[in-house]
Amino acid sequence: MINRVSKKLLGIVLILVTWACANAQSTLTSSNKSHSKPKNIILFIGDGMGPAHIKALRMFQDNPATPLEEPLVFDPYLVGSVNTNAADSKENITDSAASATAYASAQKSYNGAISVDLNAKPLRNLFEKARIAGKATGLVVTSQLTHATPAAFYAHIDDREKENAIADQLIDNRYEQMPLVDIALGGGLTFFQRHDRNILEEFSQLGFEIVNRKEQLQNATGQRLIGVFANKGLDKYWDRTINQPSLADMTKAALDKLTVLKPNGFVLIVEGSQIDWAAHANDVLGVISEMQDFERAAQVAIDYTKASKDTLMVITADHETGGLSIGAKTSGKHYQWNVDFLRQFSLTPAFIATKVLNSKAIIREVEQSMKIELSQAEKQSLKKVNLQDWDSIREKIAKIISQRSFTGWTTQGHTGGDVALYALGAGSERLRGHMDNTQVGDVLAEYVAE
Amino acid sequence: MINRVSKKLLGIVLILVTWACANAQSTLTSSNKSHSKPKNIILFIGDGMGPAHIKALRMFQDNPATPLEEPLVFDPYLVGSVNTNAADSKENITDSAASATAYASAQKSYNGAISVDLNAKPLRNLFEKARIAGKATGLVVTSQLTHATPAAFYAHIDDREKENAIADQLIDNRYEQMPLVDIALGGGLTFFQRHDRNILEEFSQLGFEIVNRKEQLQNATGQRLIGVFANKGLDKYWDRTINQPSLADMTKAALDKLTVLKPNGFVLIVEGSQIDWAAHANDVLGVISEMQDFERAAQVAIDYTKASKDTLMVITADHETGGLSIGAKTSGKHYQWNVDFLRQFSLTPAFIATKVLNSKAIIREVEQSMKIELSQAEKQSLKKVNLQDWDSIREKIAKIISQRSFTGWTTQGHTGGDVALYALGAGSERLRGHMDNTQVGDVLAEYVAE
Repeated sequence: MINRVSKKLLGIVLILVTWACANAQSTLTSSNKSHSKPKNIILFIGDGMGPAHIKALRMFQDNPATPLEEPLVFDPYLVGSVNTNAADSKENITDSAASATAYASAQKSYNGAISVDLNAKPLRNLFEKARIAGKATGLVVTSQLTHATPAAFYAHIDDREKENAIADQLIDNRYEQMPLVDIALGGGLTFFQRHDRNILEEFSQLGFEIVNRKEQLQNATGQRLIGVFANKGLDKYWDRTINQPSLADMTKAALDKLTVLKPNGFVLIVEGSQIDWAAHANDVLGVISEMQDFERAAQVAIDYTKASKDTLMVITADHETGGLSIGAKTSGKHYQWNVDFLRQFSLTPAFIATKVLNSKAIIREVEQSMKIELSQAEKQSLKKVNLQDWDSIREKIAKIISQRSFTGWTTQGHTGGDVALYALGAGSERLRGHMDNTQVGDVLAEYVAE
Repeated sequence: MINRVSKKLLGIVLILVTWACANAQSTLTSSNKSHSKPKNIILFIGDGMGPAHIKALRMFQDNPATPLEEPLVFDPYLVGSVNTNAADSKENITDSAASATAYASAQKSYNGAISVDLNAKPLRNLFEKARIAGKATGLVVTSQLTHATPAAFYAHIDDREKENAIADQLIDNRYEQMPLVDIALGGGLTFFQRHDRNILEEFSQLGFEIVNRKEQLQNATGQRLIGVFANKGLDKYWDRTINQPSLADMTKAALDKLTVLKPNGFVLIVEGSQIDWAAHANDVLGVISEMQDFERAAQVAIDYTKASKDTLMVITADHETGGLSIGAKTSGKHYQWNVDFLRQFSLTPAFIATKVLNSKAIIREVEQSMKIELSQAEKQSLKKVNLQDWDSIREKIAKIISQRSFTGWTTQGHTGGDVALYALGAGSERLRGHMDNTQVGDVLAEYVAE
């Protein structure tokens, strides 16, 4: 017993030393400790949202009649950048799990870790801290709710791939008999309604209202709410039907509920989950679609934060995906990103791929869907595709669009660049300059602490 | 005569309207007009320095024994980002000329424009404004002094390619009989010592001290100084011999002179010119070499600014070059930028290319110079190269290094992403958040104004 206590103490000392070293490196975060402490925290994470993803949306939405590009709704709140590297012995570029763990638990861990340390031991995450402080909690995502980023805020598991176990933890991880989340909106029916367990039914028995369609979300009267709108991720924003809410719809619903739930305030996490997915597929229209969903949701939260005296809103990303660049002319000196070509589209390659899947006339159908005439080379590339392989079809279409618009990609994975940091509202002065993702996590943890 | 005056007035009104529209879009730059006005301004421009170029240096210099990446010397002063688009009717990605014009003259123009407007009419640039305000001026670059970025601060010409004419303007553009620059340090002998004109001799006759080697620079006693250390650009920082100064050497020399030259202070422009050139060649070692030169020069100016009560220092870039990404694994899930491989080198591919030029044993010589064993595919690619073509040899070597280190590039040209903005010292509170490059130019112009 003494041994175990000693080990624990040693662990705590090591954590403190690590924390002190980390803070000694920071020139910006440790000042201003006396500033106002927010009651409510809203954290927006654009998964995979690098600087070029932000610029892509700004150029796409630009009004060419004005001399300067119209700013995005969060541009006025840019305060710095965030370093995202994980503490992974094999990989110096992070995945979503390690970076979400840094935000949720303020510690570096390995790629794949869901709020566990390098030894796979649980780290106290932001929702646990919020519960202890008597705060309400909300999660809003467009991926499944069990995906790495949201999971790090409520679960602890050694491997992000164990999504059934993560779904279990959404209801089983409790504080004072109740689950760690009050509001959870996103996708993932597959993981919640299983042959072995119906987690939505269990939530219902605990008094949560369960919704599956946008209309139900808007009319929900329950105090606590679980909304699951897709088997896994929602459709892309541009492709979504009337049954699936936008990220803005979900953010608004969450804020409405959270505002009145607890006197001590709330913590709300909102993720633009599929900016990353679109970038993994090197699909620039998908990126713009998901960035638009993210920006419109941010507007809802910015309005809320500005009208509130005690809310902090932070917007950042977990890493960059795709090595995206605005312009990618490999020869010559024509410096142009063909944004006018991109503006012709109002559906993403994911939608077009679904439409032409198993089609016997793929060339004609793609031309009709995209309203373009394909070149001989583009036709040849499409002819080679496996017509039953949705991913391949989508990638071929996305590639044509990238090539025609001079959109550059260096990878179908992540890259190691810094991501942007925006902050407004109460206590936002602590978030400034170039920070590590664990330093952002430190500030959030300190603000949530009782 | 009345017609000409009316046209001029109309022109001024149009400029004012454009300025008002531009400012109406900004949510951040127009506030705080009452803050302290700096006497001295130091503007650092990393040509082509996108976010990934900054991250590349930070990871390259990281001490793996500490938990967080060591910040670069300017990281603590990150305040926002800058939009760089030109007002070019054919190209929505800027070149250096248009972006330098935006910083130097606070107006958008076309690609190739050197402080002239869309009609090729001269715009009053920063050195002219400095002269009117009784300030001294300095230019420090590693390109030729006639290159687009420095040129925009002292010259006016419709086409950046006219470098002899730009060299002429360095001495012919005058205020109260004297050239617009007091200190100019960089490369470009080719453009200053020509069959038709010896501009260095002319500068000498005006009382300027002329130096061509690092030692002379360090011992220079003249009040006004022209230093030209190469026919065109200087060698890359890592490859430079003892005769060529570092950007830090030149920055220190310029600050020493400028500090005592005029009671009303000074404007100093320092450009890390070849970050861009290395990125055009998709040469990551060259990028790191030039970023290191830039960072060390920045340290000199940061120390100066921190010790001064009335100096503003701004660090930014004109655009991103290369579509650089940290990591570029095209398949699989191994998220790694092989920085350890890059750390083996202390010379750039430019140096190695010079060494093996015209060599009959290129494979062996490259292997010896790089201290690596080439793969069969790498050997094949080198065997195909034209042994008299220095550019091709360098690009082949750079490509091998990019591939082995998983460094990504999308273009040999520019991309349209935002660049970082750093500011410290007197009046730096006016530089905050996401700004347009002309808005940065506006702030500088206002500070320099008499």
